[in-house]
Amino acid sequence: MKEINGGITAPKGYKAAGIFCGIKKSGKKDLSLIYSLVPAEAAAVFTSNKVKAAPIIVSMDHIKSGKAQAIIANAGCANACTGREGLDDAKIMTKAAASALNIQEKHVLVASTGTIGPRLPMKNILDGIKIVTKKMSVSGAGDAADAILTTDKVRKEIAVQIKLGGKTVNIAGIAKGSGMIAPNMATMFAFITTDARVSQYKIKAYLKQAVDLSFNMTVVDKEQSTNDCVFLMANGLAGNPIPTGDDEKAFQRALDHVCIYLAKSIARDGEGATKLIEVKVSGAKKFGDARLIARSVAGSDLVKSAVFGEDPNFGRIMAAAGYSGANFDPEAVNVFIGGIQVINNGKAAQFNSRAARKHLKGKEVLIDIVLGRGTHMATAWGCDLTYDYVKINAEYHT
Amino acid sequence: MKEINGGITAPKGYKAAGIFCGIKKSGKKDLSLIYSLVPAEAAAVFTSNKVKAAPIIVSMDHIKSGKAQAIIANAGCANACTGREGLDDAKIMTKAAASALNIQEKHVLVASTGTIGPRLPMKNILDGIKIVTKKMSVSGAGDAADAILTTDKVRKEIAVQIKLGGKTVNIAGIAKGSGMIAPNMATMFAFITTDARVSQYKIKAYLKQAVDLSFNMTVVDKEQSTNDCVFLMANGLAGNPIPTGDDEKAFQRALDHVCIYLAKSIARDGEGATKLIEVKVSGAKKFGDARLIARSVAGSDLVKSAVFGEDPNFGRIMAAAGYSGANFDPEAVNVFIGGIQVINNGKAAQFNSRAARKHLKGKEVLIDIVLGRGTHMATAWGCDLTYDYVKINAEYHT
Repeated sequence: MKEINGGITAPKGYKAAGIFCGIKKSGKKDLSLIYSLVPAEAAAVFTSNKVKAAPIIVSMDHIKSGKAQAIIANAGCANACTGREGLDDAKIMTKAAASALNIQEKHVLVASTGTIGPRLPMKNILDGIKIVTKKMSVSGAGDAADAILTTDKVRKEIAVQIKLGGKTVNIAGIAKGSGMIAPNMATMFAFITTDARVSQYKIKAYLKQAVDLSFNMTVVDKEQSTNDCVFLMANGLAGNPIPTGDDEKAFQRALDHVCIYLAKSIARDGEGATKLIEVKVSGAKKFGDARLIARSVAGSDLVKSAVFGEDPNFGRIMAAAGYSGANFDPEAVNVFIGGIQVINNGKAAQFNSRAARKHLKGKEVLIDIVLGRGTHMATAWGCDLTYDYVKINAEYHT
Repeated sequence: MKEINGGITAPKGYKAAGIFCGIKKSGKKDLSLIYSLVPAEAAAVFTSNKVKAAPIIVSMDHIKSGKAQAIIANAGCANACTGREGLDDAKIMTKAAASALNIQEKHVLVASTGTIGPRLPMKNILDGIKIVTKKMSVSGAGDAADAILTTDKVRKEIAVQIKLGGKTVNIAGIAKGSGMIAPNMATMFAFITTDARVSQYKIKAYLKQAVDLSFNMTVVDKEQSTNDCVFLMANGLAGNPIPTGDDEKAFQRALDHVCIYLAKSIARDGEGATKLIEVKVSGAKKFGDARLIARSVAGSDLVKSAVFGEDPNFGRIMAAAGYSGANFDPEAVNVFIGGIQVINNGKAAQFNSRAARKHLKGKEVLIDIVLGRGTHMATAWGCDLTYDYVKINAEYHT
């Protein structure tokens, strides 16, 4: 597997575009399109929030066809808590995109992110769809990645290449994150394209595994939005044989890699974040326990504040493990911050606090929790809690 | 029921004291004693954190006797993650208090709060126990309340009086809170005294109900500490008949009132907090659903940031209800901020944003969520998320 350039259109047969259609007050790009020359096998994962935005409801319906050929997404307005009218707006978006692209409406997935409550400015959206469908090209990948961002500071995109059955296969993805990011997702999108041929029966399982290892292990603020979704399209234009055995594993690994890269990008660019926190839990009796502890520690406001303060606060790490709901033996736990042992069999260790602080001054903080009672492991990603998180979210007005 | 003065020693037969014994660097009081002239019926609720501090383990053992005559508590050092040696320290504390007071060791409950990791300075503690046991008096209630505080800005105490079977009965409590406060408690203590005679078989159930309605509905930061505990002593010196029927209900109401008052004090004085948030959920099909939603909204970092920013952000309220895990119909939900309707049957309502902002400028913010599908209700309390929360917790060094 190697990383390549080209973003979301690096796989064969995809075009993309991103434009400003008039939703964001900042004048930044706010309407994004990804298009496949042929209908692709498709899978999606949606927010488990009980309050679902209108585009989520429409895309949940469309994905039942098992295929997709286009994704139309806007930023700046979430089209959530907008009732029947909002649902109609989301449907009109997919209809307009399908008509402009001359494809089936059920093959269009739709996503919206931004403020909850207001209706979409449908005139701008419809005019925008006419423009964005004309403008799309292989070189539009970066614009498409930019047009889904909200409070994100950086574009999030990746493309990788592998060989399957002698053929070159590409997998690419873009994402947006920033706030409302919690285990089981948040105000986040990830759109993934591949030219791989894959089994229509297995594509959903591939995506589920990748999401469980990546976006579902990312915590910015333990929130979970009404609009989260991950879409995967596989158009088969690489011409590879349907992967099985080692090829299947290689495809899954590459898909996992794309999703983990995007998930880490989201954590690193969490609202107000200055540091990425990686929490690795190993030695668990059950995978579920490792997962609970990793997410609890990565999501703890006190741990996040301590990382911002560059303080090796092992007590807060132990406390967050303890209330995670996981089963473990506190007296067998060893904890390391940047490789420096701070907890030794459940007790505060004597450690070089200057060395620990030096690690905490870096941009990536690594917390290893070794439970010492089994072989299961899990990794979660988060970010520090800063004045700017509060500032961004106190000043973001309805 | 009326509120009275006198704090924790307002009930008959209690003495208290609080002194500085040398744990807190600030020189503030750090060792607290509450004593009953006679052994009291007693009950306790402890943190459910898997990582339990040494004093918790000792008090869990002592409360098995069903009786208590003294509470010895220190602030400044949590005696957590201190291994076998820490456990010995906690036992030595109860032994020293029992010896100085000439009571049974198993009738002494012990609690510690403060930094996780370091050992207790046992010489200071033992010297302190000699002083505090001599100094205790009916007028020492305020000192005892002060000596359990850590980052708290204000003393938390209350006393109430009711009539049971013609006798005057008093119930009083002190608490400490501030950080690490979550549903199912946090770095919080509440010590409650009463001169009521109550059934030894029912005292645990009385306390459990009161805690479920109060401390377990208080969220500062979704953390849960290694040291939380609530202790109740009922020494029977009021001479009332054991309450049944209406008297029993009156006692429970008064106990609930004391605990809710203390729980709200904890939320109001949350680390960095400038506002108390009260979230009332009604119209739920099940009590558990009302409870989940109330706690989720009161604990949401995004809702808390919005309240700090004085923004009527109904979208974040809906999102936090949606990811609470509760079962409800989003399209039947009505939400009010300070009595102003912001969500109407699941949709953003037209509302007077100036009036809503005016309410949010106050010191108490009231969020009403009416689910419209049943008759169950629950109330949770929290506080806003401010720059100072981050500052306090980033600068608090291990």
